[in-house]
Amino acid sequence: MWGDLAPIGRDADTRGYRRYAWTEADRDCRAWFQAQAESRGLAYEVDRNGNQWAWLGTATYKDVTAGDAVVTGSHLDSVPDGGAFDGPLGVVSSFAALDELRGRGAEFTRPLAITNFGDEEGARFGLACVGSRLTSGQLTREAAYELRDGAGTTLPQAMERAGYDPSRIGPDPERLARIGAFVELHVEQGRALDLSGDRVGIASAIWPHGRWRFDFHGEANHAGTTRLVDRRDPMLTYAETVLAARREAELAGAVATFGKIAVEPNGVNAIPSLVRGWLDSRAADQGTLDTVVAAIEQAAKERAERDGIDLRVVRESFTPVVEFEHALRDELNKILGGAVPVLGTGAGHDAGILSGSIPTAMLFVRNPTGVSHSPAEFAAEDDCVAGVLALADVLEGLACS
Amino acid sequence: MWGDLAPIGRDADTRGYRRYAWTEADRDCRAWFQAQAESRGLAYEVDRNGNQWAWLGTATYKDVTAGDAVVTGSHLDSVPDGGAFDGPLGVVSSFAALDELRGRGAEFTRPLAITNFGDEEGARFGLACVGSRLTSGQLTREAAYELRDGAGTTLPQAMERAGYDPSRIGPDPERLARIGAFVELHVEQGRALDLSGDRVGIASAIWPHGRWRFDFHGEANHAGTTRLVDRRDPMLTYAETVLAARREAELAGAVATFGKIAVEPNGVNAIPSLVRGWLDSRAADQGTLDTVVAAIEQAAKERAERDGIDLRVVRESFTPVVEFEHALRDELNKILGGAVPVLGTGAGHDAGILSGSIPTAMLFVRNPTGVSHSPAEFAAEDDCVAGVLALADVLEGLACS
Repeated sequence: MWGDLAPIGRDADTRGYRRYAWTEADRDCRAWFQAQAESRGLAYEVDRNGNQWAWLGTATYKDVTAGDAVVTGSHLDSVPDGGAFDGPLGVVSSFAALDELRGRGAEFTRPLAITNFGDEEGARFGLACVGSRLTSGQLTREAAYELRDGAGTTLPQAMERAGYDPSRIGPDPERLARIGAFVELHVEQGRALDLSGDRVGIASAIWPHGRWRFDFHGEANHAGTTRLVDRRDPMLTYAETVLAARREAELAGAVATFGKIAVEPNGVNAIPSLVRGWLDSRAADQGTLDTVVAAIEQAAKERAERDGIDLRVVRESFTPVVEFEHALRDELNKILGGAVPVLGTGAGHDAGILSGSIPTAMLFVRNPTGVSHSPAEFAAEDDCVAGVLALADVLEGLACS
Repeated sequence: MWGDLAPIGRDADTRGYRRYAWTEADRDCRAWFQAQAESRGLAYEVDRNGNQWAWLGTATYKDVTAGDAVVTGSHLDSVPDGGAFDGPLGVVSSFAALDELRGRGAEFTRPLAITNFGDEEGARFGLACVGSRLTSGQLTREAAYELRDGAGTTLPQAMERAGYDPSRIGPDPERLARIGAFVELHVEQGRALDLSGDRVGIASAIWPHGRWRFDFHGEANHAGTTRLVDRRDPMLTYAETVLAARREAELAGAVATFGKIAVEPNGVNAIPSLVRGWLDSRAADQGTLDTVVAAIEQAAKERAERDGIDLRVVRESFTPVVEFEHALRDELNKILGGAVPVLGTGAGHDAGILSGSIPTAMLFVRNPTGVSHSPAEFAAEDDCVAGVLALADVLEGLACS
């Protein structure tokens, strides 16, 4: 399976993946998913939001009794220059777990589906988990129609160009009502399992997190002739804010990152008129996150006054803390023998989005370096196999009992 | 004249100019220059490096006696979102000064040329004054062939696409040998004339200045899940360096600016693998500039060690101090009645580049705000007229005596 998927959307220079929603690389990933489904005799369908489904034991979710379906899967898209595992490991492991269960001669008593949720990373339109947000109603159709990529293409335009009908997007409560459990396997994005010496873990909660856009408006001017005292240089205010973000996160035990920036006019000999920086911040609880972001905003504001900068801060997205359902989490732990570590994570996932609508759980596979969202992201083959076996056990426990 | 030139390459949103070398906007500017030359019966030619010339009293520089020609002009290209005056004011004033002299019935005893030097701002290929550098031999043909724009297009490719033959570029000593004086009129890029209450000034010197590229190599990673202690985040090192640049420039009475940045992968939820920042720094003398840049590099290096960042600093361009020829400067001052202020500037100009080969001088026209390299750049009409009359006086004194 990996062999066909590995070359899709991979940049020859960085060796990182660039699988953005509704691009050619995304189309190829989707074709791979459909081929995997069909080669196993699964019933393939695409939902109204472009998420892919492969069903065992039913041709369509409509024939499923409410709460009966067990679903597993993840996503195939990537961040810019992302790694091979974030997303695909969950989808590949889902198919591999089904193969394992068939090898065991397991008899399914509940319908099973494997899914690929679209646009999880939000690399193109700036909002993560678009597929699951639409399905769960956390992103309205109207708001989705306003999403634009860097080239100005809207989400519906991009879907249409990829051959999908955007007029159908929107909440899908009927589909969700048929699902009794959604389990997402994912490579860990930290080093907790590596430090505890475990191959596989179960998610407890996802930290609350959000994205804030800081617009620092100054005055474009000549870098060689403008006296320092006459300047309104927004790069200075940005720089101070970047350092404040790190300081405040450190103090609070949270994380805060400025990883994306846009500068106008971005000329070597021009003081910028505008520096736009995006803050990503997360913490174990809402109160801590609020405190950290407020402190960063305050530091930015103080320096902005000194630099003569007009500051505007916009919260572009926010996801509250997600506690995965305790009953399902405990059931997984019981199925896996009770000795599996339970850990929190700072990363958002479709399972987190869907947890507001249906019981969800996550399995993490050890990441020896903790590196994620990078071409250097890695999981050892033995650990991936352990993940597949754990997922197979879980699916057997849930759908074959 | 302004009416035809004003709309070319102007961005509808920012109202700033985007006239980059060998683009369509550049082509339109060049067509405007040719039309201005021909409508006045001047002999038009393009030199081997793509600079434009309009001759009065000769069909080509080859017929000029060594050191006999008087040349005036400037450039028509712009920085990203530049103003209307930086460059064009010098070219427009050159044609207007000729009209004024013809109105006075002046009789030229020396050949006169008006020029438009190509790619003065270096907005596209990162190196300023490419046209005059090539002509004077300060940029070799080989180095020019290596210049690339942000899209990977090389300078020769760009020239070829614009209909020019790049195989001919290189030093042009024969042409320079025919020129006895080059006078460039330019809008002032500071507020010295405004503060002294003068409409026109004469340049004394151009500060030494250079551009340095700081490459901060870190490690791409997930912004939500990577512990702060496990990060190698180059944005932090960049931010510290930006603030150090301001601090060191302030201490030394110099200027230092980070106005351009490139980040990889530049994703909201990814710690960058690479932050590339460009430093522009200038000072009144070489020793001060060296000290400032060394101190900035040292601060970057210290923070890089703390952040686990690989730092590489490349000097991309450097121009030593330019003292304009004292004899020509004194002659201009005498022609203009002796009461004209003489001032230094932090900005580079073609006149500065050419001063290594031929006698050059500059006239500055008052800038009431000092704003430059910005859509808000401005010069009052009265001051522009005063500039034209001063330039006409200078040309009359040099070429009609």
